[in-house]
Amino acid sequence: MTSTAVTHPLVDDFKDAFRGHPAGVAIITAEGSEGPVGLTASSVSSVSAVPPIVAFSLASAQGSAGVIGAAETVVVHLLGADNAELAAVFASAGSERFGPDRAWTRLPGGEPLLHGVPRALVCRVMSRMQAGSSILLAAGVEEIVTGPPAAPLVYHDRTFHHLGDHSAL
Amino acid sequence: MTSTAVTHPLVDDFKDAFRGHPAGVAIITAEGSEGPVGLTASSVSSVSAVPPIVAFSLASAQGSAGVIGAAETVVVHLLGADNAELAAVFASAGSERFGPDRAWTRLPGGEPLLHGVPRALVCRVMSRMQAGSSILLAAGVEEIVTGPPAAPLVYHDRTFHHLGDHSAL
Repeated sequence: MTSTAVTHPLVDDFKDAFRGHPAGVAIITAEGSEGPVGLTASSVSSVSAVPPIVAFSLASAQGSAGVIGAAETVVVHLLGADNAELAAVFASAGSERFGPDRAWTRLPGGEPLLHGVPRALVCRVMSRMQAGSSILLAAGVEEIVTGPPAAPLVYHDRTFHHLGDHSAL
Repeated sequence: MTSTAVTHPLVDDFKDAFRGHPAGVAIITAEGSEGPVGLTASSVSSVSAVPPIVAFSLASAQGSAGVIGAAETVVVHLLGADNAELAAVFASAGSERFGPDRAWTRLPGGEPLLHGVPRALVCRVMSRMQAGSSILLAAGVEEIVTGPPAAPLVYHDRTFHHLGDHSAL
């Protein structure tokens, strides 16, 4: 690779590798100056239980990701198998995310809470770290909203999966 | 919660929430001053494809996690369904991880490479961020070693699962 290379020689292999690395699915929302924003993320992980801290990454500083990356508080919704359609909407560019047909309300702090999701973690962002053109965020969990229980949702190789006895090893 | 509280009131809810949030499974290895170390991690995610960057977190600065947290280079092995036993070994305190029965070699840089794993990403740590008592790391991928293909491995609610047509939604 020369210093002027536009693409990285490992990009295709890297994408292949992570297509084989499944992930739980979340929607992260925040309240911006122009209203609520949200996006589907497969990078949410538990960093620490005592105190409760999550991490996630954002691939862009534009649009919804830019608003979430700059927010003081966010809501991390951990999705269940019943939320696959919701995940697809919040992953699609230009989709209507908080329209009249969407079940959501604002929390006392103004953050958008999506209904019908097993768990929503209301978080305060603690720190941000640049990584290439993406940013990594760590956020402390201040409140947990419990919704209807559901089988977990997994994203793998561009397809949603659900887990249960049928998938256990 | 008072400032002297030892446990956080949300800890149990938080653990419940992440028991319902499945994750791909990885083993991260590094070469320490006293030999190879490695641990099982469910926090590995893709942060950026161009350039290829991964992130993961370490819950401790002791033992294997301390060595990996201080290493300049690490190997992130993305596990397949055939590697569930390997994942259990590298998740167990005091287990023999690089004994004579383990198939592994050292890469030219000295990093331990476990054999029989679908993908191993040889990474250089770019940055570290403290989050509570854990640390978050971002690492650039410098080489990808491809092993035998396998169905993906998922960790959910303390059980390993595999994905395939049976689990697709």
